[in-house]
Amino acid sequence: MNRIIAILVFTGVPLVILGTILNWSDIFMFVISSLSIIGLAGYIGRATESLAIVSGPRIGGLLNATFGNAVELLISIFTLKAGMVGIVLASLTGSVLGNLLLVLGLSFFAGGIKHKRQKFSLHDAQYNSGLLIFAIIVAFVIPEVFSMSMDTKTTLNLSIGISVILIAIYLAGLFFKLVTHRGVFSASDDSGHELEKPEWTKKKSILILFIATMAVAFVSERLVHTFETIGEQFGWTELFIGVIIVAIVGNAAEHVSAITMAVKNRVDVSVEIAVGSTLQVAMFVAPVLVLISLFMPVQMALVFTIPELVAMITATLLVINLSNDGESNWFEGLILFSAYLIMGIGFYLL
Amino acid sequence: MNRIIAILVFTGVPLVILGTILNWSDIFMFVISSLSIIGLAGYIGRATESLAIVSGPRIGGLLNATFGNAVELLISIFTLKAGMVGIVLASLTGSVLGNLLLVLGLSFFAGGIKHKRQKFSLHDAQYNSGLLIFAIIVAFVIPEVFSMSMDTKTTLNLSIGISVILIAIYLAGLFFKLVTHRGVFSASDDSGHELEKPEWTKKKSILILFIATMAVAFVSERLVHTFETIGEQFGWTELFIGVIIVAIVGNAAEHVSAITMAVKNRVDVSVEIAVGSTLQVAMFVAPVLVLISLFMPVQMALVFTIPELVAMITATLLVINLSNDGESNWFEGLILFSAYLIMGIGFYLL
Amino acid sequence: MNRIIAILVFTGVPLVILGTILNWSDIFMFVISSLSIIGLAGYIGRATESLAIVSGPRIGGLLNATFGNAVELLISIFTLKAGMVGIVLASLTGSVLGNLLLVLGLSFFAGGIKHKRQKFSLHDAQYNSGLLIFAIIVAFVIPEVFSMSMDTKTTLNLSIGISVILIAIYLAGLFFKLVTHRGVFSASDDSGHELEKPEWTKKKSILILFIATMAVAFVSERLVHTFETIGEQFGWTELFIGVIIVAIVGNAAEHVSAITMAVKNRVDVSVEIAVGSTLQVAMFVAPVLVLISLFMPVQMALVFTIPELVAMITATLLVINLSNDGESNWFEGLILFSAYLIMGIGFYLL
Repeated sequence: MNRIIAILVFTGVPLVILGTILNWSDIFMFVISSLSIIGLAGYIGRATESLAIVSGPRIGGLLNATFGNAVELLISIFTLKAGMVGIVLASLTGSVLGNLLLVLGLSFFAGGIKHKRQKFSLHDAQYNSGLLIFAIIVAFVIPEVFSMSMDTKTTLNLSIGISVILIAIYLAGLFFKLVTHRGVFSASDDSGHELEKPEWTKKKSILILFIATMAVAFVSERLVHTFETIGEQFGWTELFIGVIIVAIVGNAAEHVSAITMAVKNRVDVSVEIAVGSTLQVAMFVAPVLVLISLFMPVQMALVFTIPELVAMITATLLVINLSNDGESNWFEGLILFSAYLIMGIGFYLL
Repeated sequence: MNRIIAILVFTGVPLVILGTILNWSDIFMFVISSLSIIGLAGYIGRATESLAIVSGPRIGGLLNATFGNAVELLISIFTLKAGMVGIVLASLTGSVLGNLLLVLGLSFFAGGIKHKRQKFSLHDAQYNSGLLIFAIIVAFVIPEVFSMSMDTKTTLNLSIGISVILIAIYLAGLFFKLVTHRGVFSASDDSGHELEKPEWTKKKSILILFIATMAVAFVSERLVHTFETIGEQFGWTELFIGVIIVAIVGNAAEHVSAITMAVKNRVDVSVEIAVGSTLQVAMFVAPVLVLISLFMPVQMALVFTIPELVAMITATLLVINLSNDGESNWFEGLILFSAYLIMGIGFYLL
Repeated sequence: MNRIIAILVFTGVPLVILGTILNWSDIFMFVISSLSIIGLAGYIGRATESLAIVSGPRIGGLLNATFGNAVELLISIFTLKAGMVGIVLASLTGSVLGNLLLVLGLSFFAGGIKHKRQKFSLHDAQYNSGLLIFAIIVAFVIPEVFSMSMDTKTTLNLSIGISVILIAIYLAGLFFKLVTHRGVFSASDDSGHELEKPEWTKKKSILILFIATMAVAFVSERLVHTFETIGEQFGWTELFIGVIIVAIVGNAAEHVSAITMAVKNRVDVSVEIAVGSTLQVAMFVAPVLVLISLFMPVQMALVFTIPELVAMITATLLVINLSNDGESNWFEGLILFSAYLIMGIGFYLL
C-alpha cells in the first residue's frame, strides 16, 4: 500500500510539473494530477496519524479534523478561483454521497463478506444521526427552499449567516467531544493508540505535512484547469465531474483506510471515518468555502441544485436507518452501494 | 373463511365468463371480477402456503416471494397492455399505502383491541426500515426528481437502470435472508411450521396454483376493461381507481391474513406480511413492470406523480417511526388508518 | 418569578385598557399587550396546575390539554376575525418551531450546562416520534402537496376532512393515554403529585382561570390590531411576525416552565411540555382554527407556505433523531437552538 502511494507521488508530481511546462494534453494531465493527488492524500493521512499519536487524542482529533479534508478544501479553493461555483457545490455533494454511500457501502460489504455481522457503537450512531440531520437536512435544505423567493443578494446573506453558525457548531462539537464529554464516546480510537508507535517523528511528520499540502495545492490548480476539456471530450456535465470525479479523487485516501479497517473487523472506525468526514464537509468545508468565496470574483451561496439536495437527503435518511441497529453486514453494504450507483447513473444522465 | 372464498370463486368466475359472452354492463362486471379475483387470491395464498410447508422454509420463502404479488402483477400487466400506465403506477402506490397504512393499521387496531400491547421483533423492524428507505425513498424519489430536467427517453433509461438494480438487490436480499444470514431473523415463521400440516398435497397445490393463476389472468383482463366506464360513472379519477380500488382488490388476500394473525396475537407475522409485501411491490413488481413495458405499446418510466410519491414517503416515515419500539397497540393502529383515510380523501378530491 | 408575573399583569392590563381609551401608539400598545399576555399566561398555567393537583391526573391531563394552548388559540381567533389568515398559519408554524427547537433547545442547553447528561424516557420519546410524524408530516404535507392541483373550494374541503380526523385522533390519544394505557407512560408526572400541595383552592383556581382567560381575550384583540403598523415600522413581514413574535408571546409561559424543569434535572418534564405542546398545536389548535374559520369572513385552509412546511418537517426530523437515545446534553441543546436561529434568519430575510 505504502509503496503504491510512493510511486504515485514520486512519478506523478514530476510528471505534472513536466506536463505543465511542456503543455501536455488535458486528458493526460487530468489522469496524472488525479493520481498524484491520491498519493499525496495518502502522505497527508499518514503524517496526520503519526502526529495524532505523538500529541495525544485531543490535539490528534483536532489535527484529523483540520487536515482530514485538506485536499478537498484545496481543490475547491482553486475551483472557486477559476469561477466554477457549480463544480464546487457538486464536489461537496459528491463528498457527502461518496462518504455515506460509497465508502460506508464498500466498508460494510467488504467487512461483511469476511465477518458475518460486525458491530459498531449504537451510542455514536445515534449521536451522529442527529448531527447528520442538522448538517445535511436543516442547514442545506433551509437556504435552498427559502432562496426560491429571494434575490441573489439576500440568498448570499442567508448563506453567510448559516455558514457562521455551522462553523461555530462544528467548533462547539469538537469542544464537546474532546473536552466536556470525552469519556462518553466509544474508546475505540484510544484503546489502540497507547500501544501504537508513530510511523514518523513529530518533526518529520510536520515537514511531510507541509510539503505534501503545498504539492496538493500546486497539482490541484493544474487539475482544475482540465475540467472544461474533460467535460467536452467525455460528454460529462459539470455536475457529473463534481459529484463523481472530483469527489472520488478528493476522498480517495479516506476510502482506502475505511475499507481496510472494516476488513480488519474494526467497522466502528470505518463508520467514524465516513460519517466524521461527511460532517466535516457539511459543517466545516462547505461553510468555509462560502466565506472564502466572498473574496473571490464569483461568490458561492450555499444553494445546491434540487437533484444534489435530494440525493444528499435520501442518502442521509438511508444511512441513519441502516445503522440504527449498531450492526452491519454485506447486504447493508450492497444497499448503500446500490444507492450510490442509482444516484451516479442519475447524475450521469442529467 | 374458506367457504366464502369457495363461493366467490365458483359463482364469480362462471359469471365473469357468462358476462363476457353476453356483454353485461361494465359496472356489474367490475363488481363480479373484483370479487372473483379476491377469491382466487385466497386459493393462490393457500396453495403457496401448503407448498411452503412441504418444501421447507427456503423454497417456501421463494414461493411466497414469487406468488405473493402474482395477482397484482397480472392485473398490472393487463392494465399496461391496455396502455393505462397511469393506473399501473397508481396501483403500485396503492399497494404500498394499502400495506403500510391500511393492513398494518387494521392489524395493530384489531390486535390491540384484544391484547393491550403486542410485541414484534425490533431487530426485524430495524432491518426493514433500512430497506423501506432504500426502496421507497431512494429508488422512487431519485427518478422523479432527476426526470424533471430530462427528456422522456433519458427518463426511461434511468428507470431501466434503477429497475435492474432493484431486482438485483431484491434477489440479493432473498439470498441474504434465506442463505447467508438465516438464523439472524426472528424464528417466528419456522417455530410453527414443523408442527403444521399442509392443507393440500404438493401435487394438488401445484395444480391449484396453476389453475388459479390462469383464472386470475383471464378475470384481470376483463376487470381492466371496466375501468374507463367505472371512472366516468362514479366520477372517480384514474388516480383514485388505481390507488384505492385496484390496490384493495389486488391485496385483499394479504389484508385478511395479516389482520387474522394480529387478532391471534401474532402481530409479528402481520408486520412481516405488510412490510414484506410492500418491499416486494417496490423492489420486484414495480421494476419488473418497467422492464415488461418495454415490449408493450406504451413504455412505463418509474416516475410517479408528486402526490403519489409524497404519500408513499410520508407513509414510510410514519411506519418506521411507529414501529421503532417493537410494540403495537390500538392507538398506533388508529393513527396508521387515519393516515390512510387522509390520503384516500386527498386522492378522491384530486 | 411569581412576583414578575404579578407585576406584568397588574400594571400591564390596566395600561392596555387606558391605552385603548386614549388611543396610544401601536408600538407601545404592542409591547404592553405582549407583556400582559405573558403574565396572564403565567396565571392560567398556575391555575391549571392547582386544579390538576386537586382533580387527579386524568382530569388534570384534560385540563392541561385544554388550557395549555388557550392563549395561543385566543390570539389566533382574533387574528382570524381580522382576516389575517397568513399570520395565523405563521403563528402555528412558530409554535411548532418554538416548542421543538427553542424551548427544547434551551432546556437541553441550560440543563446540560448544570448536569453532564440528562435522561428522559426513551419509551415516551419513541411514542412521541410516531405522533410527530403523523401530525406534522402526514397531516400538514398532504394538504399542501395535494392542494397544488386543486381549486380553493376543494382544498378547503380536504382541510375540513383532515381537521375532523386530527381532532378525533387527538381525543383518541387522550383516551389512550389517560384511560386504556395509563400505566404504560412514565410515572414522572404522578410521582410528585401525591406529595404536592396545590397553590390555590379549587374555587380560587377556577375563578382565576376564568378571569385570566377573559383578560387574554381582551388584550389579544388589541395586540392583533397592532400587527400591521408593527410590520411597517420594523420592516417585518407577516411571516416573521407570525413565526417569531406571536409564537414567542403565545408560548412564553411554557418556555419558562420547561427550562426551569430542565435546570432542576427534570428534563423528562421539559420534553413532555415541548413535544406535548407541539402535538396539541398540530392536532388540536390548528384543526379547531380551520373549523372556526368556517364561520369567519375569510376561511383558513390547512395549507402552509413551502418555507413554513419545510421548516416544520426538518425541525421534526431533527428532534426525533436527537432524542432517539433518551439522553440530552448541552451540545444537543445548542444544535436545536442553532436550527431555530437558522430558520429565524431565513424567515426574517424572506
